[in-house]
Amino acid sequence: ARDIRLAVVAGDGIGTEVVEQGLLALDTALHGSGVTISTTDFDLGARRYHATGETLTDTDLDAIRAHDAILLGAIGDPSVPSGVLERGLLLKLRFALDHYVNLRPSRLYPGVVSPLGNPGEIDFVVVREGTEGPYVGNGGAIRVGTPHEVANEVSVNTAFGVERVVRDAFARAAARPRKKLTLVHKHNVLVHAGHLWRRTVEAVNAEFPDVTVDYLHVDAATIFLVTNPARFDVVVTDNLFGDILTDLAAAITGGIGLAASANINPDRTAPSMFEPVHGSAPDIAGQGKADPTATVLSVALLLEHLGLTAEAARVEKAVADDIADRKGQDSLARVRSTAEVGKDLAARIAG
Amino acid sequence: ARDIRLAVVAGDGIGTEVVEQGLLALDTALHGSGVTISTTDFDLGARRYHATGETLTDTDLDAIRAHDAILLGAIGDPSVPSGVLERGLLLKLRFALDHYVNLRPSRLYPGVVSPLGNPGEIDFVVVREGTEGPYVGNGGAIRVGTPHEVANEVSVNTAFGVERVVRDAFARAAARPRKKLTLVHKHNVLVHAGHLWRRTVEAVNAEFPDVTVDYLHVDAATIFLVTNPARFDVVVTDNLFGDILTDLAAAITGGIGLAASANINPDRTAPSMFEPVHGSAPDIAGQGKADPTATVLSVALLLEHLGLTAEAARVEKAVADDIADRKGQDSLARVRSTAEVGKDLAARIAG
Ligand SMILES: CC(C)[C@H](C(=O)O)[C@@H](O)C(=O)O
Ligand SMILES: CC(C)[C@H](C(=O)O)[C@@H](O)C(=O)O
Repeated sequence: ARDIRLAVVAGDGIGTEVVEQGLLALDTALHGSGVTISTTDFDLGARRYHATGETLTDTDLDAIRAHDAILLGAIGDPSVPSGVLERGLLLKLRFALDHYVNLRPSRLYPGVVSPLGNPGEIDFVVVREGTEGPYVGNGGAIRVGTPHEVANEVSVNTAFGVERVVRDAFARAAARPRKKLTLVHKHNVLVHAGHLWRRTVEAVNAEFPDVTVDYLHVDAATIFLVTNPARFDVVVTDNLFGDILTDLAAAITGGIGLAASANINPDRTAPSMFEPVHGSAPDIAGQGKADPTATVLSVALLLEHLGLTAEAARVEKAVADDIADRKGQDSLARVRSTAEVGKDLAARIAG
Repeated sequence: ARDIRLAVVAGDGIGTEVVEQGLLALDTALHGSGVTISTTDFDLGARRYHATGETLTDTDLDAIRAHDAILLGAIGDPSVPSGVLERGLLLKLRFALDHYVNLRPSRLYPGVVSPLGNPGEIDFVVVREGTEGPYVGNGGAIRVGTPHEVANEVSVNTAFGVERVVRDAFARAAARPRKKLTLVHKHNVLVHAGHLWRRTVEAVNAEFPDVTVDYLHVDAATIFLVTNPARFDVVVTDNLFGDILTDLAAAITGGIGLAASANINPDRTAPSMFEPVHGSAPDIAGQGKADPTATVLSVALLLEHLGLTAEAARVEKAVADDIADRKGQDSLARVRSTAEVGKDLAARIAG
């Protein structure tokens, strides 16, 4: 019998509520499979920060490393200065555990209302680089608060870092029916970083000759996301552009209440992390109003990553069926509570 | 009698075609006003680069400086390596002439089909910073082409540069009925630059107490642009975020065929530059298929900047009326040629 050690970081705001339903879905999906789950709760986020001043200690990190995967709810609270928990906890996890593939699938499930009048078929996945770019924390400022302040932010891009994520994206494209990869960058302005990405995509293409490659500047990519999202199959892009594009992608496919993500370490030198794209939503926290669907879909990505493909498919189908029954309501949580949605999804997963 | 010295940079691809119609609109709008136009054509862009290797010389720049304003068509051609004309010509003009306000209005004109199913009223303006951020060209790479390549891009932000554009944005917000300013950044990740922007907006707000301010992370801003664009009035943001948001803004208001922009030097120490947001579109160049509307709307911004408010309003009204008559076709150029649209617009301007 296989036991999966899962680190659970429920985090802030609606994090706890959605993670509870994610765990229910996970348990249900594994029922009778012979695979069991042992969870460890990590007290990380705003509460811990206020109580101890800590965001993520080396001890936390070591303890988390001893797990097979991480399920994360949401991090962030207005009571904590902007950047502290993001940099000190969420991004620290992604960087320390080398989550260089930030995977964000976008699918317009039948029954979901898109803000687009004529969305067509939307089914693409963004492979967002997770450990480089403007996210590295390589910034600084001088003369802060004076008229002579200069604040810089450095985007760091390496051949090593770009090549591994590009190769991962090609492999994903090669495994999909359309076999199409779109590089998104801004190489006409960010010429050094952009040309590294471009050359790397060209070079790795030789290993995947049946994958068709095209390129879009990030500004043009946002246009196509609203005028012709069907053109996208696999998108590979840098950390910041990926952040922007995946929120837009979530919006056109029914909102961040449905958007799942996986922070993957493909080399499996550390646990990968699965989290909804949405944040902690303090305005609706504790009211049972959050839609746990994105977390349940993140659980499907977790099962997939653990090689439990049939279970992953069952979770995704449960979500798709549930959404189809919502009949045009863009967020079912307006009608059912977080727990009710979780229960309904679990019932569908149980079959 | 007042004579306006206009530097004309038609540029590449459809640039020549749309600028011709822009000049027709300008001439027509000024007819009988006592104001005349003297134009100087500047041969800049791909042709010149291939012929001489030059993008923009000091002599060109000095000659351009001797004008009151610049009308630019489009720059860029696939035959020129990416970045050469962008950095060496277009951005060089914006930087050298201190175009720190890159003004991009977005309006959903009645009759325009938006890709959004339920767009609501869209009427906002993005004040994009034009001389700082990741656009400064402060990047570099080592070990290029080797597995050890590192390519960096530095975003430079100064109190001086942020404050002047923020103040301009506040003034614009204060002059509009809704008096609302939204700062867009990503201060939870780009903490140094982001906090400079945030502090500056807070400080300048004291000078404009009747302007309401809010803040969105750039990723969240893309969501609102497709789910609730009516929430925006004036947006102030950095060079790169502004680039991305304004293409998306153009897309939801009928496409870049309609999107105008002004690169303004508010201190008038150098001529301001007016250009459509679209590029040189080499695929349709020379075929009379380009929509000159964005250029004609840029001419309206030029007239406005020169204090010719009534003329500006006439040009904008001509466009609005023409669009209303397109009756749901998202680009009239599918029916009429570039020159026909230009003629129709001129006829409406003439009244
Ligand atoms: C909270 C924030 C640091 C994070 C990011 O920018 O990556 C979020 O927006 C995301 O997309 O997961
Ligand atoms: C062509 C390019 C350099 C330019 C930019 O990025 O500013 C364009 O996209 C724009 O928005 O005017």
